[in-house]
Formats: sequence, C-alpha cells, structure tokens
Amino acid sequence: MRIRDIGEFGLIDTLAGKILPHSGRVVRGIGDDTAVVQEEPGRLLLLTTDMLVEDIHFDLRYCPLKAVGWKAVAVNVSDIAAMGGVPGFAVVSVSIPPEWEVRQVEELYSGLIACSGEYEVDIVGGDTVSSMRGLTINVALTGYVEPDRVVYRSGASPGDIIMVTGPLGSSAAGLFVLNNYLPDNRTGLQDQVISAHLYPRARLREGRILSGSGYISSMNDISDGLASEILEICRASSTGCTIYETAIPITEAVSAVAAEAGVSPSAWALYGGEDFELVFTVKPDGLGRVTSALKEAGAFPREVGRITAPGQGCLLTDAGGRSREIKPGGYNHFRE
Amino acid sequence: MRIRDIGEFGLIDTLAGKILPHSGRVVRGIGDDTAVVQEEPGRLLLLTTDMLVEDIHFDLRYCPLKAVGWKAVAVNVSDIAAMGGVPGFAVVSVSIPPEWEVRQVEELYSGLIACSGEYEVDIVGGDTVSSMRGLTINVALTGYVEPDRVVYRSGASPGDIIMVTGPLGSSAAGLFVLNNYLPDNRTGLQDQVISAHLYPRARLREGRILSGSGYISSMNDISDGLASEILEICRASSTGCTIYETAIPITEAVSAVAAEAGVSPSAWALYGGEDFELVFTVKPDGLGRVTSALKEAGAFPREVGRITAPGQGCLLTDAGGRSREIKPGGYNHFRE
Repeated sequence: MRIRDIGEFGLIDTLAGKILPHSGRVVRGIGDDTAVVQEEPGRLLLLTTDMLVEDIHFDLRYCPLKAVGWKAVAVNVSDIAAMGGVPGFAVVSVSIPPEWEVRQVEELYSGLIACSGEYEVDIVGGDTVSSMRGLTINVALTGYVEPDRVVYRSGASPGDIIMVTGPLGSSAAGLFVLNNYLPDNRTGLQDQVISAHLYPRARLREGRILSGSGYISSMNDISDGLASEILEICRASSTGCTIYETAIPITEAVSAVAAEAGVSPSAWALYGGEDFELVFTVKPDGLGRVTSALKEAGAFPREVGRITAPGQGCLLTDAGGRSREIKPGGYNHFRE
Repeated sequence: MRIRDIGEFGLIDTLAGKILPHSGRVVRGIGDDTAVVQEEPGRLLLLTTDMLVEDIHFDLRYCPLKAVGWKAVAVNVSDIAAMGGVPGFAVVSVSIPPEWEVRQVEELYSGLIACSGEYEVDIVGGDTVSSMRGLTINVALTGYVEPDRVVYRSGASPGDIIMVTGPLGSSAAGLFVLNNYLPDNRTGLQDQVISAHLYPRARLREGRILSGSGYISSMNDISDGLASEILEICRASSTGCTIYETAIPITEAVSAVAAEAGVSPSAWALYGGEDFELVFTVKPDGLGRVTSALKEAGAFPREVGRITAPGQGCLLTDAGGRSREIKPGGYNHFRE
C-alpha cells in the first residue's frame, strides 16, 4: 500500500495510533491544531510545527523568499491562535541548496523576522543544512494558554452557531492570479488577493478574544479550506453541520477574480485553503457579545452555519435551498 | 556571495545578528546546544531542533529507515543533555515522496518511537507533507533544566580540565564500513561501529550527573567532532585549550577499522562527528568526584586536555610532544 493511496490524513491516523504518551502531562497529542501539555499550574504549554517545501507549498518563480519566510511563521502562529493561546518561542530549520546567494537566505529570514515581530514571537534557534533539491523550511513554535481558555476541535454541540472571523477564498484567488497573470497586467483587486496569498495574517487577536469570551465551544484555523476544517470539528465533536453557501463571506476582489477564472468563489472558500481565518462554534446566547467584541477589534465575523445532530451529516445548503454532503476537498498531501 | 563561500557557521553568524529578542524571557537564543527561555520560576524551558536530509545526512542504500527515525530524535535529546537538562515533548515534520509505501513510513516512525521511549520523550504532534525528492525529517524538542544546573558553552576558565564521557570515532568508523563493506563480509568489530553510527546514544544520564555535580563549567555534545566542539567552547568562553591526542579514548573496534582504512583513529575522533558523547570542562577540585559519579553510572569518562589562557590558542599535542593548531574540521554544511 502506497501513501498516495491513503493520503495525508489516512497516514496521520495510522501513525497516531502507534504513538502513545509516556507522560501524564500530555493533555492533547496528535489531532488538534497544536499539542497541549501540562506545564506549570495555571498554564498549558502549546507546541506546533509546520514544514513548507519548495514546489509543493510554494513556487519561487512568483513567490518572493520574504513571503516564504513570513508564511512559515504565520501558519504556526495561526495554529496557536486556533487554540486560543499566545505564541512564544520559535526554532527554524532550513535546508538550502549550497549554490544559493547569501542575500537570498537573508531575504528568507527578513520574512521570518517580520512575521515574528508582528506576532511578538522570538526566534531562539534553529538548524541550517544543505539541500539536494530546493528549499525546505520548518518552524516549530511554542505558546501557552490558560486552562480555562483552551479551545479544542472537539467541543461543538448541536445548536451551536458556526462562524468565521472574516472573508474566505482570497488566498486561492491570489494563487490563481499569480499563476495566470504577469505582474504588469494586474489590477488593484488582483494585487489585493495576491497579498492575501503571500502574506497571510494569523488571527491571533481574534483567537484571544474568542478564547476569553466563555462562549466558544470549538475552533480551527482555516489552513485547508472551510470544508475540511468544519469536517474536522464535526468528526472530533461527533456532530453534523449545515453550512449556508450564500452566507460564506467573499470579498469583492475574490468575486471579481473568480468571475474571470470562471469558477465559483465559494468553491475557493470551501476548498482553497490558506486563508488562516478562524472557524469556530459559539453558543447561541453568546452570539451578540462575541460578534460585537470581534467587530470592535476590527474583524468581520460572519455566521455561516449550524452544528446539528450526528445523524444529520455534514451538509452544504445552496441559494436554492438544496443540500448536498460536504466532501473533504482541501489540500491533501500525497494524493494525486 | 554564495553560502558555500561562507559555510554553515558563517551563515549562522550573519543571520543571528539580525534576530534580536522581543521578550525579556530569552536567556540564550542562537548559539548554544539549545535555546534557554525563562518560563515558570525554578525551571528554564529548553527548545532545540534538527533537520536530517536524505543524501546529505543519510543514504538509504545502507541506512535503515528505523535508524533515520532513531537518529532524528537522538540528536535532539543529545542537545538537551548538553545543557544538563531533561527532554520533554517533540513535534516531528516529515517530507516524504508520495510513491513511498506506508510500511516505509511505519519503519521510520518505529525508530522515532523507539528512541522516544528510550529517553522518555513524548511525540505530541507534527506535520506530514509531500516531497519532490527524497526524505527530509525535522524534530523539534522541548526540555527543561533547573536554573542552577544549566550548563552553557561559555563558562570554561583557564586551568579547567577537558573531559569526554566516552570513546570517540565510532560513528565515523561505522560510516566507513557501511560505505566500503557488504553486509556478508563484515566482522564483529565492524558491526559494533555500524551500530554506533546508525543508533547513536544520547548521553542524557551523564549530562544530568554533570549538571548536578556543581563542578562543570561548560559542555557541548559532540555532533561535529571533538575539534569543532572544543573550538566552540573556547570561542564562547574566550579561552585557549590544549588537547592531548594520545589521551583521546578510542575503542578497539575503531582502531581496527582505522587500521584497515589506513587513517588515524584520532582523526575520526577529532573530525568525524556524530559520536554524541559529551565534551565538558571540570574544575580541578571536582575531577575525582565527577569521574567516579560517571563511572558508577556505567560511563567511560576520560581527561583529554586543559583549558588555557586565550593568547595560547587551541592546540593539539601529539605523542611526540609536538603541538599544532586545531582547525575547525567537522562537517560544515554548504562547504564543498
């Protein structure tokens, strides 16, 4: 059996069953945005890692090295945000072709440093090694969260409202523009989605507001598309859900680029990934408070669906009121 | 300027100058075996990471995947040991060709799991992504150490005795045998050094004994050869040193393989790397106690030199009493 036959998530399931904790301090191991470990009283230690590989995650023909560095930190900060936590310290490993210029490595690090500065992360160490082909970069990041603020994927209940912290599909739209338009021929709206793709923001402030509100039952960051992330929440929480396709927030820029591309913008929102907004479930009595707290902080929260009983499945309801099952359609490593 | 012109250590120096800590909690950032961070009172958080790349760090024609997994954990545990600390929690990132069989990934993880079990490390998460060429594996590991037990590279003083926790050169000898002899034609002594190369031990127990002794002024793990590691200690401590070539402990197996190879076994000890013994400096009045504590724990400590005044340089004294300067000769990424 080849790993392309079982895919990334099948592989993770296979491995996770073999990796059993030795220590009673592991609160959550494999299977959430970050690991959660009992450290000192009153604080949980968070630990997460992400690896980006040239020609798998990024293409240096149109992705500046500064953007690769930025994203390598941002994706990890986003995982900490999705637990309701605060990031701390990062270690960075890079595997680099020896023929690279020093200034290329400096450009990569300028992105790492800029994003670390944005989210007050300290880069405290790393490893620099040669590569046989292309750039690989790995960031591991610690964080912490108070035990009464940690938000897992597994806490959603039927009746909870599904929300997102902002509009989706921008990153996929940006990738489309980068792939199809030369820089000189781009419009302002196109530049907007390119920026969302190259320099994604982690919703750290929003995650802290949500984890402090007391009304949030589950949360994920949207790294693989809304469809994949809500399915993870439903699977971990043993629930169903309904997503209202017309309620998914889409910017004018994404609509314009999707029209040019001849695709549905909601498909990019559902399956495109790398938007790094948060999807979360909120108890109905907290909806008003949570929404206004997020708006006050400058976010654009939107209600996109409801958690339902497990027997009801995970459904997408379109403008005509027709429902169909949500398929796991985000990026899945090893699949063709 | 290309990175192969300045080498791994030149590159690290260039980057480290640009990465300034935001938080007052960073006790040591880049430039020791691990980062050291102020966490709860009475405990320092340690954080380290290492990346292994196929055909740079290992060759799957003769290196079993289980050994790659073992080593990926062991090298990080060794860094924690060199700070005098205790390892905690690991996250593992792997970039794998999609055509791999699931059982190959399971074999890799069997090594990760075995080594984690050996040192009571918990694997709590990770990232699994595709690769365009070969396997890349990154492990990041947390640990802790009590503030009065942390041992940096920078504490050595003239007059301190330089010791190692055990014999050196085995890993380089093992690599030579793997490269030059088919399995069926190997002797028992050859199998012994192969095992040292494929399944290195981290000197965790020894590191804890040393950090608890109160007599240790500096410590490094020997990942890049004794020469490179003692030069790092001298540079960080602003001292010189003398290493007595004939005092470097070499096993019978290493001597036998070196004779067949026609090389000096002490060259393997000085420049071979990946032995993962500890090199440390001890105050003269602690020599007896430290030596007997290590021997009681089953180690084979050996005095190999002296720390000297900075003006005296870093010297290697041979059997005839002749001294020459120690050159940084361990593995240096990006150099030809």
